[in-house]
Amino acid sequence: MQNIKKLYYGAAYYDEYLPCDRLLDDMAMMKKAGMNLIRIAESTWSTWEPADGVFDFTHLHRMLRASADAGIDVIVGTPTYAIPSWLARKYPDILALTHHGQELYGHRQNMDLTHPGYLFHAERIIRRLLEEVQQYPHVIGFQIDNETKPYDTCCPRVQQMFAADLKKRYPDINAFNQQFGLDYWSNRIQDWADLPDVRGTINGSLGAEFKQFQRSLVTEFFRWQAGIIREYLRPEQFLTHNFDFSWRGVSFGYQPQVNQYDAAEHLDIAGADIYHPGEDDLTGAEIAFGGDLARSLKQGNYLVLETQAQGNHGWLAYPGQLRLQAFSHLAGGAVCVEYWHWHSIHNAIESYWKGVLSHNLKENATYRECMTIGADFARLSDDLAGLKKHNRIAMLMSNRSNTAFQYFPAGSISDQNTIVRWLYDAFYRMNLEMDLISDTTADSKLLAAYDLIILPSVYSITRQLAADLDAYVKNGGHLLASMRSAFADEHLKIYADDQPYGLTACFGMTYDQFTEPGRTSLSSQAVAFSKKPALSDWMELLITQDTQTEVIARYDHPYWKEYAAVTHHPYGEGSAAYIGCYFDAASLEEVLQMLMARFGMKMQAERFPVIRREGTGRDGRRIVYFFNYSNEPARYLVPFDGRELMEDAEVHAGDTCGLTPWRFHILRQNLL
Amino acid sequence: MQNIKKLYYGAAYYDEYLPCDRLLDDMAMMKKAGMNLIRIAESTWSTWEPADGVFDFTHLHRMLRASADAGIDVIVGTPTYAIPSWLARKYPDILALTHHGQELYGHRQNMDLTHPGYLFHAERIIRRLLEEVQQYPHVIGFQIDNETKPYDTCCPRVQQMFAADLKKRYPDINAFNQQFGLDYWSNRIQDWADLPDVRGTINGSLGAEFKQFQRSLVTEFFRWQAGIIREYLRPEQFLTHNFDFSWRGVSFGYQPQVNQYDAAEHLDIAGADIYHPGEDDLTGAEIAFGGDLARSLKQGNYLVLETQAQGNHGWLAYPGQLRLQAFSHLAGGAVCVEYWHWHSIHNAIESYWKGVLSHNLKENATYRECMTIGADFARLSDDLAGLKKHNRIAMLMSNRSNTAFQYFPAGSISDQNTIVRWLYDAFYRMNLEMDLISDTTADSKLLAAYDLIILPSVYSITRQLAADLDAYVKNGGHLLASMRSAFADEHLKIYADDQPYGLTACFGMTYDQFTEPGRTSLSSQAVAFSKKPALSDWMELLITQDTQTEVIARYDHPYWKEYAAVTHHPYGEGSAAYIGCYFDAASLEEVLQMLMARFGMKMQAERFPVIRREGTGRDGRRIVYFFNYSNEPARYLVPFDGRELMEDAEVHAGDTCGLTPWRFHILRQNLL
Amino acid sequence: MQNIKKLYYGAAYYDEYLPCDRLLDDMAMMKKAGMNLIRIAESTWSTWEPADGVFDFTHLHRMLRASADAGIDVIVGTPTYAIPSWLARKYPDILALTHHGQELYGHRQNMDLTHPGYLFHAERIIRRLLEEVQQYPHVIGFQIDNETKPYDTCCPRVQQMFAADLKKRYPDINAFNQQFGLDYWSNRIQDWADLPDVRGTINGSLGAEFKQFQRSLVTEFFRWQAGIIREYLRPEQFLTHNFDFSWRGVSFGYQPQVNQYDAAEHLDIAGADIYHPGEDDLTGAEIAFGGDLARSLKQGNYLVLETQAQGNHGWLAYPGQLRLQAFSHLAGGAVCVEYWHWHSIHNAIESYWKGVLSHNLKENATYRECMTIGADFARLSDDLAGLKKHNRIAMLMSNRSNTAFQYFPAGSISDQNTIVRWLYDAFYRMNLEMDLISDTTADSKLLAAYDLIILPSVYSITRQLAADLDAYVKNGGHLLASMRSAFADEHLKIYADDQPYGLTACFGMTYDQFTEPGRTSLSSQAVAFSKKPALSDWMELLITQDTQTEVIARYDHPYWKEYAAVTHHPYGEGSAAYIGCYFDAASLEEVLQMLMARFGMKMQAERFPVIRREGTGRDGRRIVYFFNYSNEPARYLVPFDGRELMEDAEVHAGDTCGLTPWRFHILRQNLL
Repeated sequence: MQNIKKLYYGAAYYDEYLPCDRLLDDMAMMKKAGMNLIRIAESTWSTWEPADGVFDFTHLHRMLRASADAGIDVIVGTPTYAIPSWLARKYPDILALTHHGQELYGHRQNMDLTHPGYLFHAERIIRRLLEEVQQYPHVIGFQIDNETKPYDTCCPRVQQMFAADLKKRYPDINAFNQQFGLDYWSNRIQDWADLPDVRGTINGSLGAEFKQFQRSLVTEFFRWQAGIIREYLRPEQFLTHNFDFSWRGVSFGYQPQVNQYDAAEHLDIAGADIYHPGEDDLTGAEIAFGGDLARSLKQGNYLVLETQAQGNHGWLAYPGQLRLQAFSHLAGGAVCVEYWHWHSIHNAIESYWKGVLSHNLKENATYRECMTIGADFARLSDDLAGLKKHNRIAMLMSNRSNTAFQYFPAGSISDQNTIVRWLYDAFYRMNLEMDLISDTTADSKLLAAYDLIILPSVYSITRQLAADLDAYVKNGGHLLASMRSAFADEHLKIYADDQPYGLTACFGMTYDQFTEPGRTSLSSQAVAFSKKPALSDWMELLITQDTQTEVIARYDHPYWKEYAAVTHHPYGEGSAAYIGCYFDAASLEEVLQMLMARFGMKMQAERFPVIRREGTGRDGRRIVYFFNYSNEPARYLVPFDGRELMEDAEVHAGDTCGLTPWRFHILRQNLL
Repeated sequence: MQNIKKLYYGAAYYDEYLPCDRLLDDMAMMKKAGMNLIRIAESTWSTWEPADGVFDFTHLHRMLRASADAGIDVIVGTPTYAIPSWLARKYPDILALTHHGQELYGHRQNMDLTHPGYLFHAERIIRRLLEEVQQYPHVIGFQIDNETKPYDTCCPRVQQMFAADLKKRYPDINAFNQQFGLDYWSNRIQDWADLPDVRGTINGSLGAEFKQFQRSLVTEFFRWQAGIIREYLRPEQFLTHNFDFSWRGVSFGYQPQVNQYDAAEHLDIAGADIYHPGEDDLTGAEIAFGGDLARSLKQGNYLVLETQAQGNHGWLAYPGQLRLQAFSHLAGGAVCVEYWHWHSIHNAIESYWKGVLSHNLKENATYRECMTIGADFARLSDDLAGLKKHNRIAMLMSNRSNTAFQYFPAGSISDQNTIVRWLYDAFYRMNLEMDLISDTTADSKLLAAYDLIILPSVYSITRQLAADLDAYVKNGGHLLASMRSAFADEHLKIYADDQPYGLTACFGMTYDQFTEPGRTSLSSQAVAFSKKPALSDWMELLITQDTQTEVIARYDHPYWKEYAAVTHHPYGEGSAAYIGCYFDAASLEEVLQMLMARFGMKMQAERFPVIRREGTGRDGRRIVYFFNYSNEPARYLVPFDGRELMEDAEVHAGDTCGLTPWRFHILRQNLL
Repeated sequence: MQNIKKLYYGAAYYDEYLPCDRLLDDMAMMKKAGMNLIRIAESTWSTWEPADGVFDFTHLHRMLRASADAGIDVIVGTPTYAIPSWLARKYPDILALTHHGQELYGHRQNMDLTHPGYLFHAERIIRRLLEEVQQYPHVIGFQIDNETKPYDTCCPRVQQMFAADLKKRYPDINAFNQQFGLDYWSNRIQDWADLPDVRGTINGSLGAEFKQFQRSLVTEFFRWQAGIIREYLRPEQFLTHNFDFSWRGVSFGYQPQVNQYDAAEHLDIAGADIYHPGEDDLTGAEIAFGGDLARSLKQGNYLVLETQAQGNHGWLAYPGQLRLQAFSHLAGGAVCVEYWHWHSIHNAIESYWKGVLSHNLKENATYRECMTIGADFARLSDDLAGLKKHNRIAMLMSNRSNTAFQYFPAGSISDQNTIVRWLYDAFYRMNLEMDLISDTTADSKLLAAYDLIILPSVYSITRQLAADLDAYVKNGGHLLASMRSAFADEHLKIYADDQPYGLTACFGMTYDQFTEPGRTSLSSQAVAFSKKPALSDWMELLITQDTQTEVIARYDHPYWKEYAAVTHHPYGEGSAAYIGCYFDAASLEEVLQMLMARFGMKMQAERFPVIRREGTGRDGRRIVYFFNYSNEPARYLVPFDGRELMEDAEVHAGDTCGLTPWRFHILRQNLL
């Protein structure tokens, strides 16, 4: 597969859901709006195969022919994430048995990904579908399944697979008992057959290991399905997947149920869906985070395979926001923005997750704004497609640590993504861009590519990674960790050693006690807080171990004032900072500004609501986006002589330019 | 059956629950209090039939003989809504399998109404009971079962009945797939045997259809049981049922689980239980709503078969409130007020749902107030029994729309009754009385009987009803609809057309977008709001389509201000108003006052807390009640020359009369 | 067994949980900290018996030898409260079937205590363990199981045992129906085989009877296990149990699932675990309540077998608090303070319930404070071990009443312990100490031992106890009851009589109505409330029946002002007070102060945050503790000439002494 060299704009399209035949009207409307891509087929197995072994691709060919005629390219999704009811009837145990009992048929993603009957029928429909679409040159790529996750499968057969896997890794069952601490509460086993139903375990190490095993089932599923599809793939076609993120009513953080970095190994290009708050709550942070993650999965451009048009209740874009959003995706490195979905649906659960068109299927305010975007994309494709990033900062994603927070919350924080976003969003508001790398692939070499590594409460860390981080700092890197980082090993066994494990010399501090902050605040000689920091949930009583350790902030409390809260420590050629507690976002930004100075990192002139994102175009010229994420006018400083592409005007370094509410500019540096 | 021509006052009575024999004492106490009716037998199958086929009617005959001796009439309830444990043991699957698993024995209303074993044994006990009571002339009527509902039965057998019903209605399974949108998420079926367990469905159309099927089971149950009872009914005896309403700790709105209009077809007179807040929270709105609904079921007088004496915790009436409540029921058209129940119960779940007597079974404050009511009822029976209403306003009840809100909430509003009561209560506070009619029986003729039809977010509407409403307005009627009205068809398939479906010409407006209001308020040139309206949950962006459309209010918001929020439109001989958003009750009252003027409807001089209710007595003279629902004194304007019946004093048109707290007057117009 | 004559200080110890071999280091560290006791073995059946019939006591002997060498005594717990997974595999139904379905393996306390397979294997491991430890003279005692409860076992077999028990007690099934009110909702049975699954019952009497039966299973389990252990017990060894209390994130009130008084019959000395809030929320109330209960179980000294070192998140003691806590236990009559646990755990669910040592297993701040306590205990053992109490007040604990509140809450109060602690804590803050006695053992003789008996909403009361209380007051005792006391019999059948049952003459008042207070407050001529009392949840409309009845407070409400809220009534030689409503703690303290004056009870000079606790040492001299439970300095009045033991200084009656924050003094009266 070659790199994607143009911008794609489009929507998911479902001819089979429509209450009337309007395919040609829709293609014409899309074309008129400048759309050049649809995604089809990923949800409709029962339409392609209405009964076991009976195939009907009428709708498929209708869509492929009509799109070809309209000059619209197509991504075809395999339909395997929603099984037909006849398949559930054929194999009653195909519906996953989960922690909450056996699934009922109805919703999607309810099956056991390892069920042989599922795999047999999935392979058959994939092969049949791929045969059907081979004749169409405008199919540019395939999507494996959709938003795949393990669906919490934990039937006895899957648990036996898990036991077998453990047995292989622990030939000595006593080593297993020891590593997982199973003597506790009489959970020790002497025989693998005694491994109890993991659904009842109170052992976080064992529970987390099973979640890790569930994640491996997803990676294996990708390997399997990619293998089948690649038999049919033409050289110019790509294989992608629509990764989704952890969900809090919007795309929030890293997906805990999938190791997306491992899964992405089997793809050519990463894809993702990104949903975010709208109207007054639109900040762009989710677009940036999701995009940075998608880009980092394969260290390159990515496809936004789904994002909101009208979307969910309360997301209806103000005039101009839809356009701002589309270009925000491009600013992260996307080469494709596809809405979910073209038309709103007239039945079933997502009828109020609205598409470009409302239920009356006519041109509307949303459609009219799409037309401006389509025109922009066409006009600017050469400049903006294939943006490359050169970030100096990386944050470490860790499935294990996320699981750890579920078993061992920090006060009320039971999702590590709370911390991930606490830190990410502060950097976002300061316009410091970053990559998001995985703890399972981060090695010395990868670390060395960055000036600053951030550990967002990366609770679980291997001995090797601790050593690598220590060496990274010694060799001139900068490290920033928040509370609880490096506390337990990869099986969530807490290190019986000084914390943070393996890094006390690096941080020049240690601690062994922590508590709820209650009325505790922070005091600092280094940071002039604009308001009293509000601590909650967790505070570690840090003890500096080195005269070089600078106490950036300490606790403002009658008894805990002896202890440090935030430290910075020069170590070897680099330095390391540690934030031992959790507090409000505004104070964090003030702490981070101070720490960036200590690290010697460059700051940007603009702060949120002006968002600045940068990269280089395919011709190597700098492209800088400035977005105004607010209801008020804003200004930015032009960084170089160049051209503003939206208004097609010349700009000069040092000028300040204005942005009306929800408006953006794109600066292209002049050729030097 | 003849019409009921006198007032009944009494209580449910359970000799079999009492810890000691005090039947004669109780009858004497009731008689002393002026009570002339008891309801018996509806909960005690296991007492009449302690073992399979073993019958013991000792308590029944005791109660019938003692009441006969005391001159107290009796309504006998069939005991079928609470099965004996021997019956549950005999047929383990008689306990309903619901969305939450199989019922355990213990509470009432836990059985599958369609179970053949249940029906066999229910018929046997009904026939035996009816034989036993045939000899008693003072049994004036029978109650079918009690508060019957489908109890969410959804066992495989019931689901097969459902599939068979669908198959009959959809000989072409593709039409079924199309109507219900089953292609979505691969839910399409090709064979009726593949219709999956509806408990898992994510398809609101299918889920709602099953709820509709469950409601039809109740209607069928009424048909079946009425058929049996009518074999025994004497001409002067009536058949009734104790309908209950949707429950929010009090009787709140229309019952979503039963089509009470259909069920009432099998009765002679409607009955209902009405429970309402007490003490400072007593407003009378529940008494009015429940009464208007009960009266509308058979368009005539009704029985209040249960209402609170001391009732639940927090309902204990202030002095005077019990009397106010009793006459509030009469003011709605009730001819009977029966308490649930005479004596408080010493064991089990309703021990704190207290009767007239407390657990010590002695005269108490509540009993003493009952004595005044009993005397009033006896004195005023000729004047007040058989009140007829002549309402010009009707509100449309819709089970389908209620179900729709469960699947497709409007923001946080997942119960359409929230809207029903929002509108009903505003009219109640303005003393504009109404009937409550059903969408399943409303036809041109019924509509034409009213000056104003209200659609309280009637989401689901047939093509026929939309056309009838359009014609109704054209012919001079007035229509008032709130947000989301006429959005989907009878299977909750959203109309792929301009909304409100079929009524855009009538309303002179359309819309295709809606959102969460956030900080949005209303601005209006027509209504001078006394405070800034507070919007929440839902707002539609209304676009007027006709120069005649008056924008009563528009949105106060930087971007949405282009759109209308409330409109009024002259259409043909009539006019139609539409409220596109949800806001506070006080602002609604101000909007409605303006709209009533636009409709040319007459307003009343009094507002809540003075409540005015009117009808005509059997001799055709106007009867007007004025209630003071407050802790403060109040006044009202006498509408005609007549007599005030409570204080037996002459009154003249134009006088203003005073009402002490929680006091009421009843005016009878002089014979003209 | 002889009385314990010295102070024990130590921790639960788990060599088998440790990630490395550090047994000798730990023993040395303990010894250095002055610790002289460990508790072992209670959770680790799977370590002693890793496979069915395979025994391995390596860790046991290691611990016993090392502790012997270090001069540290040992309590050995039987490991029966956490079963091995092989045992769960062997008997799948050994895992309890509860109201929530069948337990999964994983957590402790998941088994059916009556399962024959469980009993067989439990007996075998107990006997093997006891044989192993027989050789060790420094094993001073044994603990039966741990925190035993019935684990809500309600499988069919257990329910059959329940039915058989009922049948034995009710040879006439009609008497059973009558007592339990089963005619209600058709629940009557004619055949014991028809007794339905109690899990579905809506009959509080039946449900409560089953909970009573479950409690009897625990007592029977104690009888059985004590019998086995006593076969091995040496004369100088004791048998104890670690009782736990009702749990609200901390030890809160009396344990509803166990009749601890009955269970304690089988022990030599009571033991308990007491966990309490920390830092700013530390008040000592839980330490006092739990200690008073433990002491009352066998009317003597008790062991604190578990309490927090670092404990749960948010409990980390401020400097000085750990020491204050340890001596607070002694002040209640404890002779042992053992932490749960020595070292923090590196895997599984209690990793954040931290021990003395943190996860790095090194000396830390907590350990350093332990060293001071160990030294204190050694120095003061002769003075402080074996403190005897001579309380004049007793509060009645009642499992039945607690269950009653679950079925019949008072407004939002569904746990009687809310009332228990409302009253207990007010007395605690006033420094009025009390015993906690059981309604199942309280007879005339026991009552007569006290000047004041408190009924904390003791809803369920036998006819006999009501008569005994009446006689107690007649004979000069004082009685204080809160709302709902004496309302129902021992089967929660509400008395069909004037309330409070059997005590209306005694209280000189009765009532039959009650309601939610809403905006009601209290007015009083007797008590000058410092702020307006805030009522909630429950108020009874008390009617005085005797001119001698003093209305201490009445309701401040337009309609309820006719009724009394708090009464006091001289009766015979004594008097009785009744509090008919629930209100804020500060107002309660003011009411109680007035009532203490009416009762003629002596008040203390000190109030919380100064806590005063008193007893006599083994030589008969008075020992008075003064604790400062606050962040501010405080003062107390020296009650006698004597010696302050902490600072070893002479003190004189009438002096006032100062206490720094979280500091305490211990005064020993001089020999007279």
